[in-house]
Order: sequence, then structure tokens, then C-alpha cells
Amino acid sequence: MKKILILNGPNLNLLGQRQPDIYGSQTLNDILSPLIDNCLKHDIEATTVQSNHEGVLIDTLHQWGTDPDCVGIIFNAGAYTHTSLAMADAIRSIKTPVIEVHLSNTAAREEIRHCSMIAPVCRGTIAGFGAMSYKLALMAIIDTLGH
Amino acid sequence: MKKILILNGPNLNLLGQRQPDIYGSQTLNDILSPLIDNCLKHDIEATTVQSNHEGVLIDTLHQWGTDPDCVGIIFNAGAYTHTSLAMADAIRSIKTPVIEVHLSNTAAREEIRHCSMIAPVCRGTIAGFGAMSYKLALMAIIDTLGH
Amino acid sequence: MKKILILNGPNLNLLGQRQPDIYGSQTLNDILSPLIDNCLKHDIEATTVQSNHEGVLIDTLHQWGTDPDCVGIIFNAGAYTHTSLAMADAIRSIKTPVIEVHLSNTAAREEIRHCSMIAPVCRGTIAGFGAMSYKLALMAIIDTLGH
Amino acid sequence: MKKILILNGPNLNLLGQRQPDIYGSQTLNDILSPLIDNCLKHDIEATTVQSNHEGVLIDTLHQWGTDPDCVGIIFNAGAYTHTSLAMADAIRSIKTPVIEVHLSNTAAREEIRHCSMIAPVCRGTIAGFGAMSYKLALMAIIDTLGH
Amino acid sequence: MKKILILNGPNLNLLGQRQPDIYGSQTLNDILSPLIDNCLKHDIEATTVQSNHEGVLIDTLHQWGTDPDCVGIIFNAGAYTHTSLAMADAIRSIKTPVIEVHLSNTAAREEIRHCSMIAPVCRGTIAGFGAMSYKLALMAIIDTLGH
Amino acid sequence: MKKILILNGPNLNLLGQRQPDIYGSQTLNDILSPLIDNCLKHDIEATTVQSNHEGVLIDTLHQWGTDPDCVGIIFNAGAYTHTSLAMADAIRSIKTPVIEVHLSNTAAREEIRHCSMIAPVCRGTIAGFGAMSYKLALMAIIDTLGH
Amino acid sequence: MKKILILNGPNLNLLGQRQPDIYGSQTLNDILSPLIDNCLKHDIEATTVQSNHEGVLIDTLHQWGTDPDCVGIIFNAGAYTHTSLAMADAIRSIKTPVIEVHLSNTAAREEIRHCSMIAPVCRGTIAGFGAMSYKLALMAIIDTLGH
Amino acid sequence: MKKILILNGPNLNLLGQRQPDIYGSQTLNDILSPLIDNCLKHDIEATTVQSNHEGVLIDTLHQWGTDPDCVGIIFNAGAYTHTSLAMADAIRSIKTPVIEVHLSNTAAREEIRHCSMIAPVCRGTIAGFGAMSYKLALMAIIDTLGH
Amino acid sequence: MKKILILNGPNLNLLGQRQPDIYGSQTLNDILSPLIDNCLKHDIEATTVQSNHEGVLIDTLHQWGTDPDCVGIIFNAGAYTHTSLAMADAIRSIKTPVIEVHLSNTAAREEIRHCSMIAPVCRGTIAGFGAMSYKLALMAIIDTLGH
Amino acid sequence: MKKILILNGPNLNLLGQRQPDIYGSQTLNDILSPLIDNCLKHDIEATTVQSNHEGVLIDTLHQWGTDPDCVGIIFNAGAYTHTSLAMADAIRSIKTPVIEVHLSNTAAREEIRHCSMIAPVCRGTIAGFGAMSYKLALMAIIDTLGH
Amino acid sequence: MKKILILNGPNLNLLGQRQPDIYGSQTLNDILSPLIDNCLKHDIEATTVQSNHEGVLIDTLHQWGTDPDCVGIIFNAGAYTHTSLAMADAIRSIKTPVIEVHLSNTAAREEIRHCSMIAPVCRGTIAGFGAMSYKLALMAIIDTLGH
Amino acid sequence: MKKILILNGPNLNLLGQRQPDIYGSQTLNDILSPLIDNCLKHDIEATTVQSNHEGVLIDTLHQWGTDPDCVGIIFNAGAYTHTSLAMADAIRSIKTPVIEVHLSNTAAREEIRHCSMIAPVCRGTIAGFGAMSYKLALMAIIDTLGH
Repeated sequence: MKKILILNGPNLNLLGQRQPDIYGSQTLNDILSPLIDNCLKHDIEATTVQSNHEGVLIDTLHQWGTDPDCVGIIFNAGAYTHTSLAMADAIRSIKTPVIEVHLSNTAAREEIRHCSMIAPVCRGTIAGFGAMSYKLALMAIIDTLGH
Repeated sequence: MKKILILNGPNLNLLGQRQPDIYGSQTLNDILSPLIDNCLKHDIEATTVQSNHEGVLIDTLHQWGTDPDCVGIIFNAGAYTHTSLAMADAIRSIKTPVIEVHLSNTAAREEIRHCSMIAPVCRGTIAGFGAMSYKLALMAIIDTLGH
Repeated sequence: MKKILILNGPNLNLLGQRQPDIYGSQTLNDILSPLIDNCLKHDIEATTVQSNHEGVLIDTLHQWGTDPDCVGIIFNAGAYTHTSLAMADAIRSIKTPVIEVHLSNTAAREEIRHCSMIAPVCRGTIAGFGAMSYKLALMAIIDTLGH
Repeated sequence: MKKILILNGPNLNLLGQRQPDIYGSQTLNDILSPLIDNCLKHDIEATTVQSNHEGVLIDTLHQWGTDPDCVGIIFNAGAYTHTSLAMADAIRSIKTPVIEVHLSNTAAREEIRHCSMIAPVCRGTIAGFGAMSYKLALMAIIDTLGH
Repeated sequence: MKKILILNGPNLNLLGQRQPDIYGSQTLNDILSPLIDNCLKHDIEATTVQSNHEGVLIDTLHQWGTDPDCVGIIFNAGAYTHTSLAMADAIRSIKTPVIEVHLSNTAAREEIRHCSMIAPVCRGTIAGFGAMSYKLALMAIIDTLGH
Repeated sequence: MKKILILNGPNLNLLGQRQPDIYGSQTLNDILSPLIDNCLKHDIEATTVQSNHEGVLIDTLHQWGTDPDCVGIIFNAGAYTHTSLAMADAIRSIKTPVIEVHLSNTAAREEIRHCSMIAPVCRGTIAGFGAMSYKLALMAIIDTLGH
Repeated sequence: MKKILILNGPNLNLLGQRQPDIYGSQTLNDILSPLIDNCLKHDIEATTVQSNHEGVLIDTLHQWGTDPDCVGIIFNAGAYTHTSLAMADAIRSIKTPVIEVHLSNTAAREEIRHCSMIAPVCRGTIAGFGAMSYKLALMAIIDTLGH
Repeated sequence: MKKILILNGPNLNLLGQRQPDIYGSQTLNDILSPLIDNCLKHDIEATTVQSNHEGVLIDTLHQWGTDPDCVGIIFNAGAYTHTSLAMADAIRSIKTPVIEVHLSNTAAREEIRHCSMIAPVCRGTIAGFGAMSYKLALMAIIDTLGH
Repeated sequence: MKKILILNGPNLNLLGQRQPDIYGSQTLNDILSPLIDNCLKHDIEATTVQSNHEGVLIDTLHQWGTDPDCVGIIFNAGAYTHTSLAMADAIRSIKTPVIEVHLSNTAAREEIRHCSMIAPVCRGTIAGFGAMSYKLALMAIIDTLGH
Repeated sequence: MKKILILNGPNLNLLGQRQPDIYGSQTLNDILSPLIDNCLKHDIEATTVQSNHEGVLIDTLHQWGTDPDCVGIIFNAGAYTHTSLAMADAIRSIKTPVIEVHLSNTAAREEIRHCSMIAPVCRGTIAGFGAMSYKLALMAIIDTLGH
Repeated sequence: MKKILILNGPNLNLLGQRQPDIYGSQTLNDILSPLIDNCLKHDIEATTVQSNHEGVLIDTLHQWGTDPDCVGIIFNAGAYTHTSLAMADAIRSIKTPVIEVHLSNTAAREEIRHCSMIAPVCRGTIAGFGAMSYKLALMAIIDTLGH
Repeated sequence: MKKILILNGPNLNLLGQRQPDIYGSQTLNDILSPLIDNCLKHDIEATTVQSNHEGVLIDTLHQWGTDPDCVGIIFNAGAYTHTSLAMADAIRSIKTPVIEVHLSNTAAREEIRHCSMIAPVCRGTIAGFGAMSYKLALMAIIDTLGH
């Protein structure tokens, strides 16, 4: 059975209570549950991981990115998007394609969020569509698989 | 009948013959035809416009962006993405949501392509998926309509 | 009969419907009509041109700027103010004095609007007075003529 | 009786003898006298203050800016335009609208003169028209009063 | 018969009357006529196009740059040299070699003219020789052809 | 019973042995013990956490910042002050006010320490008073509570 | 009897009427009176000086900073914080410790307010606590005296 | 018995499979085993630690850097070299000399890798020699010991 | 009788007690007295003015700079050297040559002291010779007079 | 007999063996010999000098640039193009026109090669045509002489 | 017999008397003599060259770098490390591997010494170990030879 | 007999014929001869050296700077002032005080001439007095000797 990892970075565990004007009122679980169900319909097992630890995110990228059954990683790296060269190196080090997603339109926020350190090593980027950003990323993976 | 505009900026008319290592070998028509068909299935009329003229692109944004039947604009602004404040102002001036798309992963190219002047005023951005970038943008519009 | 050109750049055709909090609710015509009437009282023929095309704006500057009857050009270059070196060169190339006007206080907006590429080659700049910016520019021309 | 303050900053007391190629040969008095007369015709009392002291300029802005009879301040801040955040704060702190004027076209001079620290908090800016800059500013105030 | 395009950008139509201290007193026609004659002696048909429209310049580059008979394009992009990424992309998209020419020594002028966006994608650059810049560019093309 | 968290970031565990010329010879415990005692006198339970792990610091901010009994967080983020956008986001995500403290005068040290990424989202900043920085922060919280 | 100087820079005389959303509705006197009373309880004479003149502020720093009875200076330099190297030199030139205070959280405002020219030569900085910033500074001085 | 720590940062656990064109095909173990053997010949116990967690690296530096038997630390900090001020502070806080090593020539890679935040606080730097970088660092320590 | 002005800016009144490692232990009077005597020997009346007020310095420059008997101004502008455009404009506005002097070697101090705003409009600069800087400036004036 | 100097800077002596992908496989002699022959046909004596010493290049510019028989200098300054202000001053100091040539398209290489310190003081620049760059420069000189 | 060049740049001839706190008290000869002896034991002839002339250093790099018997160059380029693009080009032009060495830890000194222009084209860099930097570089060459 | 070196850098040999508007019409010999005579009156032997070679200038600084009879070096480094870190290191390496002189007011010229790399390590700087700059430097040395 094919696998997909949906990886979420710092502060996304507070989704729903954190700055709802920017991130909406859905919890992370609200957003990801329908995606997991959708994967199952395509015979894909979706796993979700959230961590506020840069090191855990890197470890997780390594583990899944070297698993031959893993066909794609959907990654919302939160604030580490803009500061973590180590995470970019982790993506560079693995074979599984990684899709960068953001709930908010990062280009419309503070300047430090305009530059993504991981974007250059990802397959592509989807930003600004709220929960739909994840959904579109999933569609991109499924479409690539020819499902 | 609802309408969608798929707007393409400078040099995209040469798609297929221009730098195929970056942009692929499909022509713009190869990419957009299936989208138009797909729209029809959802009872949406998709129109495609391509121009190398910044002024024509602005005029077209104005015309469609003030048409109450137009539910979305998919816009690949090409190089004007990075230099045209006037185009960003045009998007700001209209009500129809605009989705920014790019065939290539602009973050992985020259530094001047890392900053998009239109991103902050678009609904969201999808970059790096080749022809699939347009397809995902279309899904985003259709999904929003509840189709 | 002496002539004046009132030239307006990109997106000003949407005036009245575009971001009324910044630009007010008057249309471009609402603003310019009284000026044309005012000119006639001084036996000056005022012509208004609006275009979203950088090239058309340059062509128009050339045409009027080399017409010996034209005693002044009032120019709201919109977003091209901040990006068009070609337009600055056009002003440098003609003899008719050009007055730069802006409806909004550009210094109070985003940083990219703080620098005007055409200001150094204009006769002077009037910004931030809404429709009155045009009126003051016209007074400046008429005053210079000794009317 | 309504009042207007015409406030002038550093080195403007030397007008007429200072760099006449940039600032013209009129003294400050030559420029301002006709304005005072003009005000009287509209039943407005115009007062002129010149000082080379940043502190005096701030004190004067405070005094007039909190006087309910004062309908406008015309301010040529000279070199302090480009260096005095305190003066910008003073303008922010008062209710009377302030109009920034400059004799010369500051955008055509050294780079340090391209940025005005007070422009963002002024009602508007008029620059480059020589003595007429003051005259246009006065027209703007009178016009606003409906005279 | 082989063809050459001599393409001229914004404001070059005013040559002869525009800033003669920088650009000389010859009109564009004065400069280009002897080149066309010279081409004919080598059995090459030289066509000249001038436009103030970025879009027209791009369209023209596309048209000639994909014409297999066209052996070279001599391009004076004027002010667009320094601002148009779209034009650089157009040159990248075509096969015909493009030679960048400038009448003036751009390195000796304002800082914004020190960087050429099109230089990296041109065959080479010739700047500062006045009308002779075009002549040298033509020699370069003819020399390459072995004439 | 009300609670206060005193949170300390990287390398503060070495206090007393680390660069005593900058940080003094007291251990972290020497500094914090009297504060805990002082809190008890005001019926406040003070807890201290120190970690060199950015992720642990974020987790701890989340845990205490969403605890309704917690009336304030005193936070010395050490070097993460200057590099961690994720930590700033964590502070933004919680409701409990956070006070930034520093033992040393960071403005008097290397340039990278002049900018604090967390300062804009904190209640206030106290820096340069050595151990007294913590004491003043505690006073600020107690004072706010009306004790 | 020991003395303390509470020195306030430009525009703080307008406190209470100036931008109450940032600075609160208390007047400077409202804020400082309780502090003077508090000092008296510790047998310290507190004097307050406010000036909009950089020179007066420097003169005052010199006068008090060389008075051996003066045990501390609490200084809110207002906008001069960010522009006055001369004031920083004045603090460097005196022996009495100076504590920098700010009502607002300067790090959360415009970029020019993020850098303090006087911070590196002050004893410490307290910012963002409103009127309590002064109170904490006073506590710091009294605490140092062992009162 | 004297001790040496060989500490390795993020992504070095993937050595051998990660970008072999830059980092070679040896695993971390392939590189470090001969070094450990070599140490034993000099009666030095070499320990190797690898972690993707910045916090773990700091904890490890603290533990070994305060162990009086530890005569040297060889540290390849990976991407944290360029972003971690906290790690630099950790090195500053300990007494054991740290030698910075890199497999690749960081100066020949992307600009962000040209600046090392830890270099200024290390004993010295050795970069670009592949596995031999570690070997040379070990020689430096042994040589210093007079072995 | 010819006159010379020796003008001293902020904090120089504290000379002798202020940072003696940089500025020496002589008071301003110690330094200037021998110069005044020396002037008298050449039948020149030397006046010294010191002020911490930018406005007073400008007023003084105006007064002496327009006095036809004044043959030179020796000016140590202190910290205003690096921040006062108004003072530079004052020097530009007068005819008397101004010589910039500094006691310390400003190029060897903090970066903000490396750029002098008044240097470009002064006759010349003498820096780093302590009290002798003034002496050399005086020699330059006397030498120019042919004494 | 008229003279021309063809001056070549650092590393051009290795031409043919140095980075042939950028500079081609011809030696400097292969390139320059035909030029010398060509000069003779026009009764011009061409001398070639190559040196890796900045001082020698300056001495040579001085010697030839003050020789009234020398009608032009063709100068490939190699890497000194981008770093030597002294060489630019040397060109400024002489009367003979200097033409800057480059084999490679410097604008398409590393950023440090995008700025030429000597371009502003040269007659013109020819870059990117390989050996033909020299040939075109020679044509420019001969053409100017009216040969 | 194989050869090694040990090349030393500007001011290294003064070693021992120049800033001993940074560079130590050994003369260059003290440092290099043991290395030459060590080479002889491995049947390698080591030659040392020191020059303050950039041109001589380039000539020497050319001479040895094209000598097939030369197996390595150890290069301490002194201050030219940070300013000489020509020297970097010289290293690029030769085949013999060059190892960059520095006595001091350049990263811990002034900012201009943080960037090495030659590092990207060297085999590797060793900095901060004093005389041992040369020794380690020699070990690297010998190790590569399999001695 | 005591000695002084008057050292002159690149292009100063052309003095008198080079840009007389900036550097005057005197030759270097015209300027320096009276100084040599003046020295003899004080029993000081003055030697003058001019070179366009950075290496020769460094060698000369070394030779004179380590000669115990040499009491001072007057150094006009020309354009190397702004680019040569090696020359600054040479001055740092010697004991004889060096005085930096410039004929022109470098602060009033192009930006690259505003920063002197050697100023921080010189005894002091004298700029803008033409030939008198040398004379004042000589006075400074003689004055220091107590002559």
C-alpha cells in the first residue's frame, strides 16, 4: 500500500485558537481528517505528524523520505520555512518529492515570510488557499500517480 | 453561465519551443485545451488570453474582473510577475479572485524571480507543477464554487 | 489656442470603483471635467488621455511634448511612476514642462511607492490632495502663463 | 478670524544669497509677503516663522497645531525634512493639517533628499515650483475652506 | 536572402532632438540608412523597427527570432534594457543571436543604467561609440557569416 | 492559585561559569530562587524551566500560555531571541502576556543581537540590569495584578 | 539628599492628547507625579525636565550627569532615541547611570524605531509597559541604592 | 584517559546516500571509524555523536566541553553552521577547544554557506578536504598534545 | 582686523573629563587659548563658540559666514558631523571657507563616524591629531592669507 | 607612423590553456597576430603588452597615453576591470582614447564581474564576442581615423 | 622529484615583528624551515616564495601551477585573500591544487576578512591554527599522495 | 640625522597634466621640493618615492617603517587608499607613524572615495588643501618632534 506523509511544523498544533483572522478557526485535525479519508479511497495510507521541534521534523523527513513506499510528502513547515537551512538540506537529501503548502498567503505578510528556504528544493508550492492548500497538494500527488 | 479567464503573460506563446528544460515541450494550447473541456463539464465557460503587452494584460484583467459572471482568473504573468506594480494594482482594483500560477519553481531560479509583485494581492499561488499548476488552480476555483 | 494635456496612467480608468478608501469615489471624469471647463475660461484647450499601456503613454508624451502649442502636461503616471525609466526618458526628451500629480500621499503607502522615477525630470510634484492635486497643477501652469 | 502658519526651517533665512542657482534670488520675505496679503483678502491671518532650531520648529508646530483657529500649516522644513523623526512625530501629534512644500525639486538632488520623513504624516506635498510652491499650498488650504 | 533586424526601443524615435549632448544630433534614420545600404552589398536584407511599446518589441523579437532566414538582431533596447525581464526572456526564447548596442556609454551615466537585464542573454554588447555602435554590431554579424 | 512561568533559553544553564564578564557569576538558580520566594509572598506559584531546545521552549510556551491560571511569562530567550521566528509565532499564538528579559545590554553587543524577533509580540522588554532584569519583570506582572 | 532626574524628550509634552492608541490618555504629569511622591518616601528628590530641543536635553544631561548627588537619570528620549548620536555621546560623557525608558513597545512599530542610538551607552532599557516603564526604572535605581 | 568528541550535525546521518557529488559516497561511519582507531593508538578515547536536533548538539557541547578530560571537540555543524547563534554561544561558554570541520568547500557553494556563525569562536576551521577534513582536525589536536 | 571663528559642537564643553582615552585630558580652553594668542601675533582676532544646540551652531555659522572680515572658520562639529544635513546646508550657504577638524581619528571608531555630512562642503578636513588638529587648521588659514 | 597599443591584463598569458569553455582555445598570440597584420595594412604600428602586474599596466597606460602618436588603446583588463580604481584613474589621466574589450560576456558570469570600474572612463566597451571583440575595437579606432 | 610550493603574500615577511598578538612571534622562516625538512623526508622538494606584489604572486602561481612535477601549492595570500579577483582567476587557470592557509582565525577579525575571494577555487581552507595551519596543509598534500 | 619619507601612490607622477581641475597644475616635484628644503632647515632628510605599484609601496613602507631614524611617513596613497587592505596591513605592521594626505577633498567626490582603508591605521588624515595638505602633514611631524 502506498503512503503519504502530511507533515506540520511549529505552532500548527494551536490551529483554531491561534490568530483565527490569519489561519481560520478549523483545528489541524478538522483540516486533515477529510484528506486521510480521501487517501483511503485511492488506496493510499496518509499519516500526519506535527512537531514544534526542528530536529523531529528533520528526523521524520529522513524516515519517510527514504521509505520506498512513500509517494509524496505534504509539508507545512510553519515559521521554519523562513529560517531553517537544515530542513532544506533534509529535503535535498531524500528522494520522495515534497510539496510545500501554506494556509495563509505568506507573500501578503511580513517581509521575513516572503522568502522560503525550502521552496527551491520542493516539487512545488501551494500557498494562500487555507485548508484547500493541503487538498490541492494531495490532488497533485494523486494526479501524478495516475489515479 | 459562469466564466473563468485563463490569462497568460509574456513569452508563454512560445511555450513548447522556449527553454524546454524549464518549461516542458507542451504548447500553451496543449496545456489549456483539457482545462477548457474540464470547465465545460462544470458548466463554466473558460476563455484563454495570451499577450506580451503589459497594457493588454491590465485591460483584460479590468474587463473580466468587473464582469459579475466571472468567478475566477487563473493568471500566469510570466516575467511581469516580478516587475509590474501596475499589474498588481489592476488585481487590487478588481473584485474577481485571481490565482497566480507558474509552470516552473520560480524559487529555484534567479534571485529576481524569487519576489512576486502580484502574489500579495492574489487569492493564492501555485508554482512548480508544470501544466498541473493550471489544473490545480482550476480545481481550487471549482472547489470554491461547491461544484 | 494654447493646449494642455492631462495624462493618466494605469488603473485610473477604474477610479471610483477601485479602492475608494485610498482614491475616493469620484470617477476620473468627475475629477477632470471641471478642469477642462476651467481651462476654457482661460482660452486653453485641455485634452485628457488615459491608458494602461506604457507605450501609449510614451507615444502621447512625445506627440504633445513636441507640439509648440502645448504649454504644459499634467501627468498622473500611476504605478508606472515607480517602475518606468522609459517614461522618465520620454519626459527628458521633450520640451513641454510636465507636472507630476498623485491623488494619494504616495509617501504614506508601501515603500516601493516612495521613489518616483519621473519626479527628477518633472517641473514639480503635487501629491496627496485627491482631486485637488490636478487642480493645483493646473493653477501652476496657468499662473506661469501669467493668466 | 481664521489663521494660517507658514513655517520655515533651517537656512531659509539666507534665501536670496544662498545657492541662487537652486533656490532663486528672492528673499524669504519677497516670497511670503504676497501670500500674507492674499490671505487677508480671504479674512485669514497668516503668520510666518523661521528658525534654524529643530526644537523651536517643534514648539511652534505644537502651539499652532493645537490652536482651534488655525486651519492649516504650510511647512518648508528644509534639511530637517530628511533627518528629523521628532518633527514628524510633532506633526502626527497635532490636528491641524500640515502641507509640505519645497522650493526645489528635491527628487532631482542628492539621494539623501529623496526621502522625506515628514511626508507620510502631512496632508500632501508640493515640490519644485520655487516660490509658487507656497502659493499652491495656500490655494489648497483656501480651496478646502470653500473660499 | 539572409535577413537582419535592427530593433530600437523607447524614445529612440526622438533621436536628433532628444538630449543631443548624450545622443548626438543624428536622427535614427541618419544612423540606420548607411547600415541598410551596407547590408545590401553583402546580400542581406536589413529591416528596422522602432517602438516605444515593450510588448511590440517582444512580439518583434519573437517574429524575427523564429525566422530561420534571420541571421542576427541588433538591439538597442533603450531604457527597457534596465527594467524589462520579459524582454530578456524573449531573447532567451529565440535562437537568432541578439547583439546589444547602446549609443551612449551607459556605465558613465546614472547607476540604474549600469545593469543591463538583457546583456546576459545576448551574444555580446557594444556600448559608447555613438552611431558606430550599430556599425560594429553589423560588422560582428557579417564577420560571423564569413562574408 | 495564580501561576507565573520563568522560562530560560539556550546556554543559560551554564550561567555562573559562562563568560562571567558579560553574564555575572551567579548561577541561574541563584538568580531565580529569590524570585520564587517573592512570588509565594504574593500567593503566586512561580515555575522555572530552562532548555536548550527551541522545540521544548515552544511546547512550554504553548502549555503555560493556554493555562488560564497563568498570569504572566518572564522569558529570557537567549540567542533564540535573534533567530527564532517560530518562537515569536508561539508567543503570538498564546494569550498570556510574555515579558522579554535579558541579563546583558544586548544593544551594546554584536550587531546580530540588536534585533529581537520576539520583542514585537511581547508585552515589553527589560534588558541590561543583570539579575535585576528578572526582578523588574516580576514587579511588572505583580503590579499589573494590583498586588 | 540624593537626586534623580526624569528627563523627557520631544513631543512628550503633548502626552494625553497625542496618538492615545499608542501612548495612552494620561498626561506626562499624571505619569510622573506619583513617581516624585514615591521618591520622597525614599528621601530622594526627583526633578522632571521635558524639552523638544536636542541641545537642551544634552545640556541637562551634562548638568545632572556631573552632579555627584544625582544617583540616576530616567530618560525617555522620544524620537531622538533613533537619530541623535550627540545625545548618545552626552550619556557616554557623564558618570551618572542613565536608564532608557519607552512608553510604547518600539520594536512593534516602524523600522526606524527598532534601533536605539542611546541604548548601548545606557545602564539598561525598559520599553513597552506604558507609564509603568518609568516606575520600573525608578525601582531599578532605588533597588541599586539598597533602599 | 584523555577524550575527544567528534560531533556531527543535521543530515550527516544520511552521508553516503545524500548528494554524493558534494559529500562523497562514504557513510559517516566509514569516515569516523579509522579516526577512532587512530585515537586509540594515542591513548585517546574518541566518541562520536550525531544529531539533527540543535538542542541535543548544544547539550552535548555543554557536557563534553565542561569535562576536564576532554582535550578537543571536532565539530561538523552542517547547516546549523550558518544559522545557529545559540550553538556559537554554547562554544563560547565552554573551555574545551572546538575545531570546525566541513566535508565540502562551503565557500564554493550558495552564498548563505559563506558565513559561519561558529567560526569566530572555534579554535580554527578546516573545510573542503572531504573525509580528510576530520583527519586533519584530529592531527591538530594530537599535535597540540605533543603526541 | 581680520577674524577667525573656532566653532565647537556638542559635548566638547566636557573635554578633559569626557572619555580621556579618546579625547585627551586637556579642556577645550587649554586647547584653544594658545591658538587665540597665536592669532593675535598675526593680527587676527579669534573667537571661540561652543554649543550643544544644532540651531545655535547654524545661527553662528550664518553670522560669521556672512561677515566679510571673517577669513576662516575652524569647525569641530562633534557628533553632528555625522547626522546634520542642516549644518552642511548652512556651510554651503555661506562664503567663508570652513575647515573640518576632529581630535580623534574618526575613521578608527564606530562605523557611523566614518561618514561626515559636512566634509563635502568644507575646504578640507584634518582629523586624528588631538589638539594639534586645530593648530594645523589655523596654519592652513594663516598660510592661505600669505602671513 | 601612427601607433596602437593592445594591452592585456592578468591571466591572459594563459589563454588557450585557461578555462577554454569560457575563453576559447586560442592563445593570446593567435588572437593578436592577425590584428597586428591588419594594422600594418593601415600604416599603423600595433604593439601588444601583457602583464599580471597592476603597476605595470598603469605604467604602460601612462607611457602610451601620453605619446602623441598613439591613436588608441585596446584594453582587456581581465579581473582588474572589477577591482582597480587606480587603473581607472590612469585612464582618466591620459588623453588617448581607451576601448574596453572582453572575450567573454561578463554580464553572464558571477556578479562581481557585472560592474566595470574602468568602463565609465573608456571610450566604449565591447564584450562577449571572443577574439572578435579585439577586432571590432580595432575597427572602431580605424573607422574614427577615417581610414 | 616531486615539488611543493609554499607561497606567502603581503606583509608576511614581517612575521615575528608584526602584531605578535595576532600572528605570533615566529618569523616566516621559523615556521617554514621544519616544513621543508619534513618534505625532504618524503622525497619532496619544497620551495618558499614571499612577495608583497600581487603580480609576482600571480606569476609564481602560473609558473608552478603549470609545472607537472608540482603536486601542491600551500598559499597564504594575506590581505590579497579578500581583495584580489585576479589571484582567484590565476588559481582557476592552473591545474595544481592550491590549499588556502591562514595563521589567524580570519572569521574572528574585521568583517572584510570574513570573505575569501580565493577560497571557492582552492582545494580547501585551513585557518586559525597559527604555524600549524601550514603543517596541516602539508599533511593534506602528503596524505593525498599516499605517502 | 632624522629622516622623513614622503610616499606617493598611483598616477601622482602625472600630476600637473592629470585632471587639473581636481588636482591643480603643479607637478609632484613642484609640490615636494619646498618641503624637502624645509626639512633640511630642521636637520631632517626628506626622501620622496612615487610608484604605481602596490607592491613597491608596501616594500617601501616596510623599509622606512622599520628604520629607527625615520620619524614619520607622509603618504598619499592615491586610489589604493580605497582598495588596498594589504597596504593598511603594512602600515599596521610598522612602528613609524604614517600621516594620510590627499590633495583633493575626497569626501566631495565619487562614493568609492569616501571610505579610506588606511585611515584607521594612520596617525591622522589631512585632505582637501591641495599642495598645502603635504605642508600641514610636515608641520604635524615637526611639531611632534618639538622642533
